[in-house]
Amino acid sequence: MAIEELKILAGLLPELRQDSSVATGPGDDCAVLRTPGGNMMDILAAVDQLARDVHYTGDTPPEAAGEKLIKRNLSDIAAMGGTPRWALLTVAAGGRDSDWVLRFCRGVAAYASACGIPVVGGDLAGLKADTEVATLTILGEIPAGLAVLRSGAHPGDGLYVTGSIGNSFASCHHLTFRPRLAEGEFLRGKATAMLDVSDGLLLDAGRLARASHVDLRLDAELVPLRAGAVLPDALGDGEDYELLFTAPRSIEEKWQRALAPMTRIGEVLSGAGRVLDRHGNEYNIDRAGYEH
Amino acid sequence: MAIEELKILAGLLPELRQDSSVATGPGDDCAVLRTPGGNMMDILAAVDQLARDVHYTGDTPPEAAGEKLIKRNLSDIAAMGGTPRWALLTVAAGGRDSDWVLRFCRGVAAYASACGIPVVGGDLAGLKADTEVATLTILGEIPAGLAVLRSGAHPGDGLYVTGSIGNSFASCHHLTFRPRLAEGEFLRGKATAMLDVSDGLLLDAGRLARASHVDLRLDAELVPLRAGAVLPDALGDGEDYELLFTAPRSIEEKWQRALAPMTRIGEVLSGAGRVLDRHGNEYNIDRAGYEH
Repeated sequence: MAIEELKILAGLLPELRQDSSVATGPGDDCAVLRTPGGNMMDILAAVDQLARDVHYTGDTPPEAAGEKLIKRNLSDIAAMGGTPRWALLTVAAGGRDSDWVLRFCRGVAAYASACGIPVVGGDLAGLKADTEVATLTILGEIPAGLAVLRSGAHPGDGLYVTGSIGNSFASCHHLTFRPRLAEGEFLRGKATAMLDVSDGLLLDAGRLARASHVDLRLDAELVPLRAGAVLPDALGDGEDYELLFTAPRSIEEKWQRALAPMTRIGEVLSGAGRVLDRHGNEYNIDRAGYEH
Repeated sequence: MAIEELKILAGLLPELRQDSSVATGPGDDCAVLRTPGGNMMDILAAVDQLARDVHYTGDTPPEAAGEKLIKRNLSDIAAMGGTPRWALLTVAAGGRDSDWVLRFCRGVAAYASACGIPVVGGDLAGLKADTEVATLTILGEIPAGLAVLRSGAHPGDGLYVTGSIGNSFASCHHLTFRPRLAEGEFLRGKATAMLDVSDGLLLDAGRLARASHVDLRLDAELVPLRAGAVLPDALGDGEDYELLFTAPRSIEEKWQRALAPMTRIGEVLSGAGRVLDRHGNEYNIDRAGYEH
């Protein structure tokens, strides 16, 4: 689906009626749901898709594709500062034998099991076409009210990213990455705004800036590049699955050695949703990043 | 996917490691999840798929297809005796324009809104093939411990079905049905076992019998037939989305007029998972019903 069509479909979002049980609805990395009875925990919920020839090639080992599917969802839980709890899996496949589907599912299940996340439900269906698409729904928990949204950045905060950026496909990082769950939990109660970088650093930075009603100054020369990555492409490559967050500068002393490296790449300015380079010029975000 | 392949994939289920938070894992209509902190409510979770040329034809109005998707999921919540709360939606489409996808999503959203269920998240993706598949994840609630499982039937209980059975496709019932949410909530604390009839009455009765470790005597002549349905085909047609349940015979006096008709079609016998006709002969369940 082209980015233009997604923009049209974005017209659907305002039509989706929410209620008081929905602390955060569509538009963040996860929904934040409030259960009745004064529960101490909020429920996090997100769903993501993985389609052949979009998110992996036809000859990707099915176990690796399955693992990618659940890791993308875990990255969404990490981006809220939450803890993953349960998963549900669907596969719709045509033109694959049952061995391929079984191996794909085992790729999901093995990673889930290693993370202590039960796969509690799912569905398998045939497709009348030579392709396949799978979905994973992730449910997580977070102490009530502590979810780190995209909307809390304050002028004066630093802008940070974990790990490194760019060249995800050629390096196979998009298959081998480790979702930043420990980093996300560490940042709960510390980061003011956060999301995971999936569609390109600039595009995702723009989302954070708009949600928080701030400008972000992002110094491209400070961005930590993955091996083989080059500027400016790395700013739009996507599939990084790193955490982009804002926090008071005191975070830099608190960051713990066991976590992935964290790099300050800019700062939060008062503004209106723009991403600026170090000279104060606005990046053209529509041409960076990609939707998929 | 052929039924043989699904049987192979059923080999995956024992590999899926559960934990103490999972009161009921894969294999019932919904998973039953226990949140920490002595919450009074369990979470219900289920996911279902809807694919072109499998669950609807290419010329089905997209709104009707979308409505069918969410209604199938609501039927799963009804089959646990639960209350639906939140939904997440995905669509993967190739060869459709954005108008089709938007109308499909509006079909989901309109029915969800009418039921007071916020659509709290989702994902849209392109497919490199001329088909589409959508999923809906439904989350619900039920007072802790009260979910009506498939496994609680007792010898001596009656066997009941709501509404009528058979001829679902030709009559368009598969698009126009009303999920039996009110009936399911009424049966909470009363029915001993329950599921929704989606793959054919005999096939689903066999599932209930095996889960409960009982035999079911099912008198085909008592089965209420939808207009145009004929025996024995109706026992295997599927897509009925009625509730099949077992309960003490006292349920018959308690049943309320506002609910869909309920018909006793047999009884629960001690046994080992078989479905018997009124002469005590076993139905060949493998040849009845269909997987999809």
